[in-house]
Amino acid sequence: MAALDLPIADGRLRRQLEFIVEIDRLKGILRQTWLTDRSRPENDAEHSWHLAVMALVLAEYAPSGTDLSRAVRMLVVHDLVEIDAGDTFVYDERRSAADQGCELRNLWEEFERRDTPEARFAAALDRLQPMLHNYLTGGLAWRKHGVTADRVHARNRHIGDGSPALWDVAQAIIGTAVERGFLEERGPETAR
Amino acid sequence: MAALDLPIADGRLRRQLEFIVEIDRLKGILRQTWLTDRSRPENDAEHSWHLAVMALVLAEYAPSGTDLSRAVRMLVVHDLVEIDAGDTFVYDERRSAADQGCELRNLWEEFERRDTPEARFAAALDRLQPMLHNYLTGGLAWRKHGVTADRVHARNRHIGDGSPALWDVAQAIIGTAVERGFLEERGPETAR
Repeated sequence: MAALDLPIADGRLRRQLEFIVEIDRLKGILRQTWLTDRSRPENDAEHSWHLAVMALVLAEYAPSGTDLSRAVRMLVVHDLVEIDAGDTFVYDERRSAADQGCELRNLWEEFERRDTPEARFAAALDRLQPMLHNYLTGGLAWRKHGVTADRVHARNRHIGDGSPALWDVAQAIIGTAVERGFLEERGPETAR
Repeated sequence: MAALDLPIADGRLRRQLEFIVEIDRLKGILRQTWLTDRSRPENDAEHSWHLAVMALVLAEYAPSGTDLSRAVRMLVVHDLVEIDAGDTFVYDERRSAADQGCELRNLWEEFERRDTPEARFAAALDRLQPMLHNYLTGGLAWRKHGVTADRVHARNRHIGDGSPALWDVAQAIIGTAVERGFLEERGPETAR
């Protein structure tokens, strides 16, 4: 954990600041997805930001009963688990104020389980965003990894659980990407 | 504006997706602040993400009556204005669904005016985060720009309007940075 090394007497506040410093590392964790201008791979921090704005702009396509502010909270913290904290987990109680570590961990676990409207919507955005980027870069990551349309379809199908309208968008992306040669239709041995 | 070029009949949804694609450019807009590992300057998208998490973690230091979810919304969109949209403003109604363009613009204007608890808290975080980064990089940006402690003090004083506790942190940063030689105390001709 980063030693902040400042004269701050309040232990809770000091731990909170240390956590804030620690998570700066998310900006150095690279994803498979490329920026739409193809300049470089995206990192987890800017990806998380993008999803948060998507949640605001696409809120009307969330399941009814979705608490949007909870979905946004979930999206901004869902990738913190990617930080390799070495000895311990970034959500660990020792790494932040105990109640907050617990809350962050709960949000992440809820995201992973996809058993609430917020988590289903958040997971749908988390899948749709890389598809948009892949499409707009002419299938850069798809082609690099030899991914075929049937796999993209299967892997992203749960977008429909979070938002039927956004699953329609995802299917339009897959179909158009195949038409334009950004994505191979399917592997020789697979079937939808 | 990015041409998304997908068969999506719903004009509103198509504009929303185009907006989401357009704002990918925030990831390429660099700030004066460096990452804490000194590897590179920070960009506006990851900065916005960092502020959103800070708002969640430091919520207890916000002014009473702060609507935290509104502060987070404000933080994730407050830097979109940095995108040079060429012919028009990124918050322009033509660039997103009209009602949403208006809402985003209102959030940004509120942030700039600092006349609500949410805006004062958001602005405090927006000032504190670069101070933390400057401190942790040994004053990299301060020294590069010849900034002195009195200017850092004057420029960031309004952190206290958003959070007295965080202004105490900011003052601890300034004092310790001067002690350690990360920051010159003051210019020869200036006075607090």
